[in-house]
Amino acid sequence: MAKAAVLREFGKPLVLEDFPEIHPGPGEVLVKILAAGVCGSDVHITKGEDPRVPVPMVPGHEGVGVVKELNEPCFDLEGEEVKVGDLILWNRGVACGKCYYCTIVKDPSLCPERWTYGIHKSAENPRQIRGCYAEELLLTTDTELLKLKPDDEPAVMVAASCSGGTAAHTIELAAIQPGDVVLIQGLGPLGLFLAAFAKAKGAAGIIAFKRSPEKEPLAAAFGVTHFLSLAKSTHQERQELINNLTCGRGVDVAMEAAGQNEVLAEGLPLVRPGGAYVSVGFGVPTPPWPLDTFGLIVRKNVRFQGVWVSDFAHIRQAILLVRSQPEVFAKMVTHRFPLAEANQALKTVADRGGIKVVIEP
Amino acid sequence: MAKAAVLREFGKPLVLEDFPEIHPGPGEVLVKILAAGVCGSDVHITKGEDPRVPVPMVPGHEGVGVVKELNEPCFDLEGEEVKVGDLILWNRGVACGKCYYCTIVKDPSLCPERWTYGIHKSAENPRQIRGCYAEELLLTTDTELLKLKPDDEPAVMVAASCSGGTAAHTIELAAIQPGDVVLIQGLGPLGLFLAAFAKAKGAAGIIAFKRSPEKEPLAAAFGVTHFLSLAKSTHQERQELINNLTCGRGVDVAMEAAGQNEVLAEGLPLVRPGGAYVSVGFGVPTPPWPLDTFGLIVRKNVRFQGVWVSDFAHIRQAILLVRSQPEVFAKMVTHRFPLAEANQALKTVADRGGIKVVIEP
Amino acid sequence: MAKAAVLREFGKPLVLEDFPEIHPGPGEVLVKILAAGVCGSDVHITKGEDPRVPVPMVPGHEGVGVVKELNEPCFDLEGEEVKVGDLILWNRGVACGKCYYCTIVKDPSLCPERWTYGIHKSAENPRQIRGCYAEELLLTTDTELLKLKPDDEPAVMVAASCSGGTAAHTIELAAIQPGDVVLIQGLGPLGLFLAAFAKAKGAAGIIAFKRSPEKEPLAAAFGVTHFLSLAKSTHQERQELINNLTCGRGVDVAMEAAGQNEVLAEGLPLVRPGGAYVSVGFGVPTPPWPLDTFGLIVRKNVRFQGVWVSDFAHIRQAILLVRSQPEVFAKMVTHRFPLAEANQALKTVADRGGIKVVIEP
Amino acid sequence: MAKAAVLREFGKPLVLEDFPEIHPGPGEVLVKILAAGVCGSDVHITKGEDPRVPVPMVPGHEGVGVVKELNEPCFDLEGEEVKVGDLILWNRGVACGKCYYCTIVKDPSLCPERWTYGIHKSAENPRQIRGCYAEELLLTTDTELLKLKPDDEPAVMVAASCSGGTAAHTIELAAIQPGDVVLIQGLGPLGLFLAAFAKAKGAAGIIAFKRSPEKEPLAAAFGVTHFLSLAKSTHQERQELINNLTCGRGVDVAMEAAGQNEVLAEGLPLVRPGGAYVSVGFGVPTPPWPLDTFGLIVRKNVRFQGVWVSDFAHIRQAILLVRSQPEVFAKMVTHRFPLAEANQALKTVADRGGIKVVIEP
Repeated sequence: MAKAAVLREFGKPLVLEDFPEIHPGPGEVLVKILAAGVCGSDVHITKGEDPRVPVPMVPGHEGVGVVKELNEPCFDLEGEEVKVGDLILWNRGVACGKCYYCTIVKDPSLCPERWTYGIHKSAENPRQIRGCYAEELLLTTDTELLKLKPDDEPAVMVAASCSGGTAAHTIELAAIQPGDVVLIQGLGPLGLFLAAFAKAKGAAGIIAFKRSPEKEPLAAAFGVTHFLSLAKSTHQERQELINNLTCGRGVDVAMEAAGQNEVLAEGLPLVRPGGAYVSVGFGVPTPPWPLDTFGLIVRKNVRFQGVWVSDFAHIRQAILLVRSQPEVFAKMVTHRFPLAEANQALKTVADRGGIKVVIEP
Repeated sequence: MAKAAVLREFGKPLVLEDFPEIHPGPGEVLVKILAAGVCGSDVHITKGEDPRVPVPMVPGHEGVGVVKELNEPCFDLEGEEVKVGDLILWNRGVACGKCYYCTIVKDPSLCPERWTYGIHKSAENPRQIRGCYAEELLLTTDTELLKLKPDDEPAVMVAASCSGGTAAHTIELAAIQPGDVVLIQGLGPLGLFLAAFAKAKGAAGIIAFKRSPEKEPLAAAFGVTHFLSLAKSTHQERQELINNLTCGRGVDVAMEAAGQNEVLAEGLPLVRPGGAYVSVGFGVPTPPWPLDTFGLIVRKNVRFQGVWVSDFAHIRQAILLVRSQPEVFAKMVTHRFPLAEANQALKTVADRGGIKVVIEP
Repeated sequence: MAKAAVLREFGKPLVLEDFPEIHPGPGEVLVKILAAGVCGSDVHITKGEDPRVPVPMVPGHEGVGVVKELNEPCFDLEGEEVKVGDLILWNRGVACGKCYYCTIVKDPSLCPERWTYGIHKSAENPRQIRGCYAEELLLTTDTELLKLKPDDEPAVMVAASCSGGTAAHTIELAAIQPGDVVLIQGLGPLGLFLAAFAKAKGAAGIIAFKRSPEKEPLAAAFGVTHFLSLAKSTHQERQELINNLTCGRGVDVAMEAAGQNEVLAEGLPLVRPGGAYVSVGFGVPTPPWPLDTFGLIVRKNVRFQGVWVSDFAHIRQAILLVRSQPEVFAKMVTHRFPLAEANQALKTVADRGGIKVVIEP
Repeated sequence: MAKAAVLREFGKPLVLEDFPEIHPGPGEVLVKILAAGVCGSDVHITKGEDPRVPVPMVPGHEGVGVVKELNEPCFDLEGEEVKVGDLILWNRGVACGKCYYCTIVKDPSLCPERWTYGIHKSAENPRQIRGCYAEELLLTTDTELLKLKPDDEPAVMVAASCSGGTAAHTIELAAIQPGDVVLIQGLGPLGLFLAAFAKAKGAAGIIAFKRSPEKEPLAAAFGVTHFLSLAKSTHQERQELINNLTCGRGVDVAMEAAGQNEVLAEGLPLVRPGGAYVSVGFGVPTPPWPLDTFGLIVRKNVRFQGVWVSDFAHIRQAILLVRSQPEVFAKMVTHRFPLAEANQALKTVADRGGIKVVIEP
């Protein structure tokens, strides 16, 4: 028997429920959850703003846990055997492995059959936990696994499974060169991962714009070299900072992790000719915004790149990044709640009261 | 003494004028023009819609000619010596070779000091021909040259110097893979070059949308495999054609060579997840258009890439492409005029009465 | 009941044997073989020179067939339903889909668990056909499939499943640019595919060296622009041809599909500074050869790239290439044998008496 | 009047000589040298082992200096005006800017006309200083410049102009991905730059093999995570370390900065399938070595990449890298000599008595 926080009705609080005892079949892995990340999209999900989500369901797509039971020998992607008691992280999304996107494009993020723990699967028929806001989770046989090291801290590592992976995907598409000057818009977990990755790619300058001036020390720890508060600076001042850092050219790459049209509208013109604007912050539909194709895209030979989710190669990069500086990433975890307080955890994220909020069942 | 067609006043006809005899200094090359292409942008230029253009000036940025006089030994980019009597094509744009874009980004198309024959230079102070609508042209010492072969036909080759080069740049950024299904919007010289290049990159299907149904045979000669007349098909039918060819996914790459917002609005949604939309047709400002960033860019992981002009590596690729199938590219040349009829040549392009219009001085 | 040609003992003729009737389980596909390609490596396999091969076994890793029986709905990589009676081609290699190479590197060709029909699986325990020299073949549930078109000719298409795919992989790593001059060493099926692909990538010149002067017309059909017989030309003459075509620089890319040290020794020095030498022809060990690292690799900034087998994305590109010019690829099929004459088919390949030899069971 | 150390005869000590006063012509820049790096290749040069070198000549291709005199306004590659008194670093190599390599390949490192300060130019006819072992140096009009910052220390920055740039080129071709495990062979200035760059590209593990165990602390400062002394470990132990770090696969990328065949022979087999071996350490010819093409290149799908010198984009990356951690790079400078002791400086390098040896005129 295991407890899980169940979303019974959109917009209503989660309810703690008991689920029947379960044992893994061949190739399946039963995990005891040690940390479940509360993602900004969980707020949309519980409100009913994400059309992919059925009810009742157990939210939580970010998880780290320890193997509780196995049915047969199992190996992680490095070829290491996974045994009972091992700390593991898994791919939150499960792709088909056989379609055009999985086989030809080799981008399982785009697989039309891809489903995600904590998003797509109902908790009924069969009655089962399929999300991480729970004491236990049964991983299907086609779920990709990676063993963590015993001293990886679950609550610090858990964000690698979603924001970290998506940031790695963004960075892959951003194609930062050593010496580049980079702009990051938005400094939630995704934006902080972007800063740390941009530094790891050799960016010579990392500029961040953010509404909250008190985020500056945190941003600096993650690699941001120049911070301007949107509340305390004018657009003109931000433009001048960039001009000074780039001899008037504009940033080589800008990355948006905020999901707002006004953010796009400020950021895209700040990119230099031949540079790239990479947009990853939009998780739900927003109204169209007026794009000056000639002036901002064609005349400047600019690349405007969208990014959608991530695959397990990206998640592995995020794990390695967190492990390279755990004391920095530990600063990201501002709140920890027991499973029974999952609703407060969600509220903290909805109120933007923290950076990374983690449930520790 | 040499004649040239001079733009004395925007919106007025060009005037045939005599220019004083000139001799090349060290490193300069005096060329007798054999073919000058009339580009769509020449229509904008003569109307005064391009802010870069001074008057009086000699238009014409596309040229092929024969070397008339040299002052010292001169070599083309292949290291071949260029002698009097050789047929040559040159880079219409001259970049500085020393700035951030020339040296670090290695994209001289973006050099802020880049200037173009037939666009930027006045015909006075000094009194001199700096465009191709002329009997002669003096090439500066920093102009890049390529020797043509004696049997390259000047009027057929001349479009390689602008539309061809820009198409090669577009194709480079489009990153077509063998087997891709490609959409081309717009079938002027640029669009036809795009079709021929897409075929040369191994595209398995090349779809074109075009207002003029009579263009279908020409399009087929350039590699278009599926043609739909915008006048005779509905958007629904065009969508269905693409669905049938791509198992419902959408095209891998779409390229726009039309420069109109409604073209973008139809084309961008036709790209598959993870695909690319490449926009090169916008030569002058157009009003902003409403972009659904979430739905068309982020959720679909799409790359929206702008393209601006070209460099000499691109122009060389275009020359090689034309040379590989001269009989096909000869079909593109629908009109030839003597220099004295430069105004009729311009009018033919303005009225969209031909594909490639060439002045043969 | 189905017949297959069985290798009972290395170095001995294959024996035609009956296999018990079989029916597909869930996800499996029973195929009636229409064409089985005889690959050069089949000669090594039957001689016992390939350590991966058990006996008894049914050779044949290249196959095209028609679906005879299915157990449940099945879809190909394009998402198209595969039904009884459909013509299909499958991935000869089956990778694990979960390891470092499959997941992180996204190169299933390198998967250590990858196995190949006609190479790795015994015909006993269980008694079963696992190669294409047979009337029937049962495809496992994790075998990747692609529906062919009804008018694809099986014997012409079958080489796409091995030489074609490996050529596509080679071309991907060769990174040919439009306008490049390319050298191909070896003109078996692999070399001919390389020529056709190089042309499809926009190579401006394709040079081939080959012992048999009579191959010239065939080479020309596949895109070779300059042919020199090794028997009738000197090394000096071959060097001069390349110098003439490349202004003395050397070829941009050379690709070796011959698998001999003396071929490497001639080809590598013919690559220009900054160019690439791609080696794919070595299928079995050969003695080391003396490499001048400073002179041929470092001082010239050359890339020396090895290529091993292919994945299904490559095979799909080969299928599309064959389909784009079936009349050309039909010329490659020089011999066809019934299943009962599998030993003659093998002998024809061993004696280098043909180009592509196909068994039609 | 300015002093310079002149190589009058190969194998003999340099002689301090006076050169006539000189003033820059249009576009030229007269520099007072503050730091001249002594490169390992200077030892070969003074011994007469480099066929490019004339005598008499002034050695020294690595330099940092302050502008002493200008003839007309001058701008660096960022577009910043360069004035008298500014600290600058320049491209030691001057390419033609017009050939196939400069224009089409965009790799001026390969330009056949490229010449290098301190290597190619005689000190006579005209009597002039063309190397950095001198108080002054006149930079030609086509020499690329970059202004340094006032607090960049010349002796620390000077290695960016050769080893640093060449390391940046190596890293570009190595294509390290975040999370990769990398091997570096050789820990001179080039190898230390490689380590710092590999770290800046997100390598998760950086292994170094080196004869001198006392180099370990220095290596660690530059980013090396695992150090094995060649003197104190066996090949077997080194293999095991790599197996442990890579789950038995081998390193993703190995880079050789030692220039010895036995180094290649140990390193190439340590690369995983699909990985890369990048060779940059060979500056002068060495005997051929026996390469197992099938086993090490083809069967493993390995890329063996040579690297030759660098261009100014690489040098700029090296400058930015040094500036990001000047206290680390300061550790590299183990010896400083006045110009009068140039021969001792050379001897220190020849005896491998230091890491970076700098002359401060």
